Amino acid sequence: MITGVESLSIQCELIIFIRFIFGFMFPQASDLIITPATTFKEKPDPTGLVFGTVFTDNMLTIEWSLASGWEKPYIKPLENLSLHPASSSLHYAIELFEGMKAYRGVDGKIRLFRPSLNMERMARSARRATLPCFDENELLECIRKLVEVEKEWVPYSTAASLYIRPTLIGTEPSLGVKKPTKALLYVILSPVGPYFASGSFNPISLWADPKYVRAWKGGTGDCKLGGNYGSSIYAQREALELGCQQVLWLYGEDHQITEVGTMNLFLYWINEDGDELATPPLDGIILPGVTRQSILDLACDWGEFKVSERYITMSDLTTALEENRVKEMFGAGTACVVCPISKILYKGKHLHIPTMENGPELATRFLNKLSDIQVRGMYLLVAHQ
Amino acid sequence: MITGVESLSIQCELIIFIRFIFGFMFPQASDLIITPATTFKEKPDPTGLVFGTVFTDNMLTIEWSLASGWEKPYIKPLENLSLHPASSSLHYAIELFEGMKAYRGVDGKIRLFRPSLNMERMARSARRATLPCFDENELLECIRKLVEVEKEWVPYSTAASLYIRPTLIGTEPSLGVKKPTKALLYVILSPVGPYFASGSFNPISLWADPKYVRAWKGGTGDCKLGGNYGSSIYAQREALELGCQQVLWLYGEDHQITEVGTMNLFLYWINEDGDELATPPLDGIILPGVTRQSILDLACDWGEFKVSERYITMSDLTTALEENRVKEMFGAGTACVVCPISKILYKGKHLHIPTMENGPELATRFLNKLSDIQVRGMYLLVAHQ
Repeated sequence: MITGVESLSIQCELIIFIRFIFGFMFPQASDLIITPATTFKEKPDPTGLVFGTVFTDNMLTIEWSLASGWEKPYIKPLENLSLHPASSSLHYAIELFEGMKAYRGVDGKIRLFRPSLNMERMARSARRATLPCFDENELLECIRKLVEVEKEWVPYSTAASLYIRPTLIGTEPSLGVKKPTKALLYVILSPVGPYFASGSFNPISLWADPKYVRAWKGGTGDCKLGGNYGSSIYAQREALELGCQQVLWLYGEDHQITEVGTMNLFLYWINEDGDELATPPLDGIILPGVTRQSILDLACDWGEFKVSERYITMSDLTTALEENRVKEMFGAGTACVVCPISKILYKGKHLHIPTMENGPELATRFLNKLSDIQVRGMYLLVAHQ
Repeated sequence: MITGVESLSIQCELIIFIRFIFGFMFPQASDLIITPATTFKEKPDPTGLVFGTVFTDNMLTIEWSLASGWEKPYIKPLENLSLHPASSSLHYAIELFEGMKAYRGVDGKIRLFRPSLNMERMARSARRATLPCFDENELLECIRKLVEVEKEWVPYSTAASLYIRPTLIGTEPSLGVKKPTKALLYVILSPVGPYFASGSFNPISLWADPKYVRAWKGGTGDCKLGGNYGSSIYAQREALELGCQQVLWLYGEDHQITEVGTMNLFLYWINEDGDELATPPLDGIILPGVTRQSILDLACDWGEFKVSERYITMSDLTTALEENRVKEMFGAGTACVVCPISKILYKGKHLHIPTMENGPELATRFLNKLSDIQVRGMYLLVAHQ
C-alpha cells in the first residue's frame, strides 16, 4: 500500500526523472518571449564604426541551471547583466563566445554566413568549458529571430555588416573550481564597418617571437574560450611597442607558424610540386576558423593549385623568402575576412613578405569571392526577406 | 596674450596632465567610504561549511578607468555586479583573483597569513592580464578594514577561517581584443570550514595523463588568471570518472610532475644524498603558492634535510617507488594547507604512494607548524584586536 508520504515521494522522483529527460532540452525558438525595446538608439553612420563599440537595442538571453535545465529564451532590450560577484565566469573564465556576421545583400536580403559552423564550434567550446550543451538549430533560429527584430541595424552597405556575438558564461555563484550549476547564454549585436577603412587592403606587420605561446597541445587553443584571448593581449602590446601590428604566434622548438593575432594564417608559395596554399593543420592548437574553412573549400573547389593543411616553420619561410618562392601571406577571420601580411620581425630582423607586390592576387580573389557569397546571395541561410 | 579660449584649453591640458601624474594612483585606504549593511545574514555553523558558498554581508569595490584612474574605495553591502554584456572579463577572461585567509587565533586576535605575498602575486597577475596596477599596501589596508567590518564572520574556531577573495576584472564594454579601459577591483569574503571535515588527513588519489596540460612556457600558468582554472575542469571531470579525486598535471615528453588540481606539489623522498623535500621550480608554468613558499621557508629554516626546487618526472617517481625511496607526497595550497596523496593512476596502473604509512610525519609537521603561525600568533599582520 502506498501511503500519502510515499506517494508524494514517488511524485517528486517522477518530476525529477521527467526533468532529467526533458528539462535539460534546449527550448524551441517558438518558445521565444519577445518584448523588444520601445525606445531606439540612433543608428550610426556605417563608414565610421569602430569594431564592437556600438550595440543594437535588443539582446537574446537564455538562462540555464542544473536543477531546471534551460529556461525560455527572451529577446528583450539590451541591458547590463546582474551577476553574483562570485560568478564562475568572473573568477575561473568559464566562458566562451562566437563571432559571426549578418550581411545586407545587394538584393536587400539579410544573410548569415555559414552560421551552422559557428553553432558546431560553440557546442564544442561548451563541452570543453563544461558549460551546458544546447540545440544548435534552435539557438540559430533564436539568433535569426533576433536579427529579424534588429533588421534595421544591419547596415545598408555592402562594406559593413552586423556582427553577432553569442556568449555563454558560467554564473555559478560559488568559489569551488567545478562545473557550474548555473549558466547564461546571451547574444548581442554590433554594426561593424569594413575592416579596412579605405576599402582596399592595408597590409600588416607581425612580431614573431617564441617568448609568448598562444596555445598548447592539451590546452584549449582549438576552442573559442575567453582564456585564449585575455592571455594574448600582453604579447600584442609588446608587438605594438616594437612597431608591429599583430603577433605571429609560434609553437615548439622549430618555431612552427600557427596563427596571427586572432586570425588563422595562410601562406601561398611555390613548393617542390609547384604552387601551394598552405595553412597549419587542426592539431589541437589551431582555432578551426569559419573563414579558414571557407578559403580551403573555395581553393579545393577551384583545383588550380595544391591546397595543404601542413606545418610551416619559420625556417621553411625564411628559406622560401631567400629563394623568392613566397607569393602571398595573409590572415583570415570573421572580422577582416582576409588580411595581407607584408612584414615579419623575427630574431631582430625584418623579413619582407612580397604579398602586396604580388597583387595580392589570391587574397583579393578570396575576398571578392567571399564577399560575393555574403552580399550577393550566392549561398546560405536567409535571415530576413 | 592668452585668450579666454586658450586659457581654458591650457587649464584642460593641465588637468589631464595632473590626472596623468596623480589620477592613476591607487586611492589611500583612508579614502574608504564605508556604508556597511544594516541587515545581517545568519552566520553559519563553522563545522558544516562548503567552500566558497556562503558570503559575508559586505564587499569592497574600487572602480578604475583609463580616463579617471582609480576611484574611491567602497565597503558596502554585498550585491550583484551590474556589467555590460560586452565586458571584457566575460568574453576574453581579462580577470584575475587571489585567495587568502583570516584566522581567529586562540588569543582572540584575527590574523592574515603572509598577505603581502598575495598582494605581490596579484600585482604580477594584473600586469600579465594588462589590468591596471595598484598600490599593494593600500589595497591590503582596505582588505584589513573589510575584515574588521566583518570580524564577527571570522569563525570562532581554530579549524575554520574567513576566506578572502580579491578579484580584478576588465569591464571594458566593447568587443575589441585589447587592454581594457575600464576595470573593477572587488573583494568578497566567505567563511570556510576545515578542508578535512574529520579534522584529520584524508589522502587523495590522482589521475596523471599527458592528455591535458594545465600550463605551458610562454603562457600564464605562473599567474592567477581565470583562464588557468576554467580550462582545468574538463580534465578534473575525467579524473573523477576514473575514480580519482584530482588531476596530477604533467608537462613535456618526459612527463614532468608540475601541480595537483589547484595546488602545488611536494615530494619527500630519499635521493642520492639522503632525504630530500622536492617541489618543481618556478620556471613559468608553476603558480608561486604562498603555502608552497612557506613550506620551503620552514624546511630551509629547520635545515634537517635537503630542500630542492627541481624537476621530477613520472619516471623518477616510479623508479623511487620501486626502490622504496618515497616517503610522502602532498599538495599544498591555501584551501587545504597540506593534502596527502596516496595513489596515482598513470598509464593504466595504480601507483601506491606510502604517504599515510609514513605518518605522514612531515606533512603533519608542516600542517601543525603553519597552524601554529596562523592561529597561535607566532607571526604576521594583526587585522583586528
